[in-house]
Amino acid sequence: MISDKLTGQNTKHFFRRPFDRFLVIAGPCTVDSKDQLEETAAKLSQIGVSHLRAGAFKMRTSPDSYQGLGEEGLQYLQDAGSRYNLETVSEIISVADIDLMCQYVDILLVGTRNMQNYPLLKALGMINKPVILKRGMANSIREWIQASEYIKKGGNDNIIMCERGIRTFEDYTRNSLDLSAVPIVKSLTPYPVIVDPSHATGRAELVKPMTWAAAAAGADGVMIECDADPLNMKCDSKQTITIEELQSILEKLPSITNIWR
Amino acid sequence: MISDKLTGQNTKHFFRRPFDRFLVIAGPCTVDSKDQLEETAAKLSQIGVSHLRAGAFKMRTSPDSYQGLGEEGLQYLQDAGSRYNLETVSEIISVADIDLMCQYVDILLVGTRNMQNYPLLKALGMINKPVILKRGMANSIREWIQASEYIKKGGNDNIIMCERGIRTFEDYTRNSLDLSAVPIVKSLTPYPVIVDPSHATGRAELVKPMTWAAAAAGADGVMIECDADPLNMKCDSKQTITIEELQSILEKLPSITNIWR
Amino acid sequence: MISDKLTGQNTKHFFRRPFDRFLVIAGPCTVDSKDQLEETAAKLSQIGVSHLRAGAFKMRTSPDSYQGLGEEGLQYLQDAGSRYNLETVSEIISVADIDLMCQYVDILLVGTRNMQNYPLLKALGMINKPVILKRGMANSIREWIQASEYIKKGGNDNIIMCERGIRTFEDYTRNSLDLSAVPIVKSLTPYPVIVDPSHATGRAELVKPMTWAAAAAGADGVMIECDADPLNMKCDSKQTITIEELQSILEKLPSITNIWR
Amino acid sequence: MISDKLTGQNTKHFFRRPFDRFLVIAGPCTVDSKDQLEETAAKLSQIGVSHLRAGAFKMRTSPDSYQGLGEEGLQYLQDAGSRYNLETVSEIISVADIDLMCQYVDILLVGTRNMQNYPLLKALGMINKPVILKRGMANSIREWIQASEYIKKGGNDNIIMCERGIRTFEDYTRNSLDLSAVPIVKSLTPYPVIVDPSHATGRAELVKPMTWAAAAAGADGVMIECDADPLNMKCDSKQTITIEELQSILEKLPSITNIWR
Repeated sequence: MISDKLTGQNTKHFFRRPFDRFLVIAGPCTVDSKDQLEETAAKLSQIGVSHLRAGAFKMRTSPDSYQGLGEEGLQYLQDAGSRYNLETVSEIISVADIDLMCQYVDILLVGTRNMQNYPLLKALGMINKPVILKRGMANSIREWIQASEYIKKGGNDNIIMCERGIRTFEDYTRNSLDLSAVPIVKSLTPYPVIVDPSHATGRAELVKPMTWAAAAAGADGVMIECDADPLNMKCDSKQTITIEELQSILEKLPSITNIWR
Repeated sequence: MISDKLTGQNTKHFFRRPFDRFLVIAGPCTVDSKDQLEETAAKLSQIGVSHLRAGAFKMRTSPDSYQGLGEEGLQYLQDAGSRYNLETVSEIISVADIDLMCQYVDILLVGTRNMQNYPLLKALGMINKPVILKRGMANSIREWIQASEYIKKGGNDNIIMCERGIRTFEDYTRNSLDLSAVPIVKSLTPYPVIVDPSHATGRAELVKPMTWAAAAAGADGVMIECDADPLNMKCDSKQTITIEELQSILEKLPSITNIWR
Repeated sequence: MISDKLTGQNTKHFFRRPFDRFLVIAGPCTVDSKDQLEETAAKLSQIGVSHLRAGAFKMRTSPDSYQGLGEEGLQYLQDAGSRYNLETVSEIISVADIDLMCQYVDILLVGTRNMQNYPLLKALGMINKPVILKRGMANSIREWIQASEYIKKGGNDNIIMCERGIRTFEDYTRNSLDLSAVPIVKSLTPYPVIVDPSHATGRAELVKPMTWAAAAAGADGVMIECDADPLNMKCDSKQTITIEELQSILEKLPSITNIWR
Repeated sequence: MISDKLTGQNTKHFFRRPFDRFLVIAGPCTVDSKDQLEETAAKLSQIGVSHLRAGAFKMRTSPDSYQGLGEEGLQYLQDAGSRYNLETVSEIISVADIDLMCQYVDILLVGTRNMQNYPLLKALGMINKPVILKRGMANSIREWIQASEYIKKGGNDNIIMCERGIRTFEDYTRNSLDLSAVPIVKSLTPYPVIVDPSHATGRAELVKPMTWAAAAAGADGVMIECDADPLNMKCDSKQTITIEELQSILEKLPSITNIWR
């Protein structure tokens, strides 16, 4: 797969601005079980979400935390995406997993801790899949754009930039969402910019105002942690919203995104 | 003035949520001259702005920078506000200036460097004027709210909280605008929360997206550096927008603020 | 007192590098009582400390925290200094207190929250006493030096710069002590630079290694929170060391400071 | 090599506190050429340095920066180490390079951008070589220690922790050296803690005071960028000191390290 001829611009998954619709990627932090994912996918599909996210390989700060289901989780993700007509998104954490990941998921996600994992970025430059590049939690906008150049240099410019909060002294939120990055990165690159309010704030009650703020700042989409049953998740339970909450957020989005048209 | 009986809740200037309209405070960083301020005030009034801001006493990082016109500047501000029916806002930097300031301006502004100037906050707790309390550029939300308690403890709870960006490692913008603070402070205090996108970003081109984002995050208003002639200002020229730019920002605001009603 | 002719360079208290000895300022955060301060002063004097610090006017983040004894505390400080032949240091928090402070203490201390209180700095530029200028916890070295210029501009260049930690994402310590600031400020100004390891770290067990590190970095002195009975203090108990601990720190200092001679 | 039985505690390279001597690792940022490295190694050996560092695989923020000589560079490093009886240290940036690196170098270095590259850390847990784990430039002490647990969990507890500065708002230095981390990590782990003043400050003139400060804070060693000809290096020229400067630093070290015995 790595050596495939790059033909991204002809695929249905190619991302380039302007988007014709605001991208909404939603789903649980991790694939916990087949049933959980199927139920969540079914409901997301009903409220008009187009992209399902869930992690199978996790980057956990402690080696004793849950590390993910691996290939089994990828299979569940692919099945759920296929059954409910959702594109799938999952995190890639190692060069060794790229071929496997490419067999199962539509869009590969580079997490915040890997934004400067240059060997990984170089390898992702040689695949024919869109890559979501999350901003490193302590990286400047300049470094983030330079990281995207590692991917592009290999030939893959099917890149989506994702602002997910930066590390500051403020500890009420997990990180500080830097929405200024949205218009800045859009002015400096041709790539779409999406926002992850869930990881940025770490608090479910802030997802709604920060999603709306992201849209008003000109973001091209959002990635939101959402689950049919947030209280029974293996990670990130505190920042995950319900399907109903997501629905109420999405209802008001068109009024905001229209101001940019 | 300091010893006046506090009757804030009966005055026309009392601020408490919910606002019936989104508060727009605009004007130059400093009063540079009578003519400049009059021209700007006239134009702001025409586009529907209700509050005029301009500094007469400045907190400049270097002692060699322009320090403001002092009382002469306050007089120009009062004249311009009176002529064009604009409420006036100006920064208070010293306990010694409180009586003077209260004679000339409608709302006193505590700048970011004075958020923890407790003797000043205590003195402002004893006046009968609204106080805008800007967040210290390196202060947590908790400390900011505690600072408001110094004012309230004196009897004055006519307080407006103003998020204006925090200091982080990111240097593309002057500071990092922390819009998460808006819903957080609104959930923890009864005070309105406004946002200053001009000082937060330090870049005129970011004022529009960040004003819209602030409104979408639920802010009750904004304070924007705006001048009839930004290129000829004595300070903050780079972050000041024109009257026309402000007008184009304000036109789209109702679509956003309506989502919160 | 403010209008006194400035003759700092002729007074016994004038500070200019190089120092003939490493300056050790020690004492409790606040004057809690006459007895507490006398006991501490007596013991500090016995182990060779030359300067006694204690606060009478406090800058507390919450208005409900202990605010200090005021003039009564200054009197106790002066008495203890006089009885045990210790120079005295105390924090100035308001222009209105300058005359009073100058009657009681030898060296005025500007705390971290007032580093950019320019009206206060201007007023301190007109007195004939040494001023210790603490670095703002979120201020750059450049801003700190610019703040010193506000004092110097008034005619008082009897200034001691004090590094006391900066605000970062690290939360194991209260702040992050930036010892690089010591050689930098010494290269850019003529002023002595001292270090406050107590407020920087917020942890008594780190005072020893950080004091030694400060000396090795070329600091001209330290200011340390130390009390005869740390467990019964009204504030900062957790970061205050005992007289015995201070003695063990001081014993090893000459080996370090000698490397710079 | 990865599957070797772990017998670290019997090898001559096993690191555990207390050290009998202060560890000095020195050398250029990268292997630029065979001649450069040989000359530097010869001189370092003469002044008593025991460990030679130089990079062959680089993590550069921009894909257009010099990326290192690869295996050729490792060969030069091994040759120089062997000829001048210096242990060798070089950075590992990818799981795919581990076997190769283990053939050439004595100690593997995990750089700041890989501190949370957990697949890499897990793989390093299965080798029989010491690993230097640099602190992530935006990682808390807690996260840094948790990262070390990924290595230890695999069976390799031959770990050296290296403080190298954290990212803050201060921009006079490249990063802010957090020397408080030295006593903290020594109290929380059994591992030696060394300090890299070169990358932390980014300024050659600060290497001396910060090396001395590190030793006074109780560090077990330092890693310093040093070259026979700093002006003609391909990277980090500005922060690299000369052999003569290093010698003058080392001469004074025993006076400092003795205070801890």
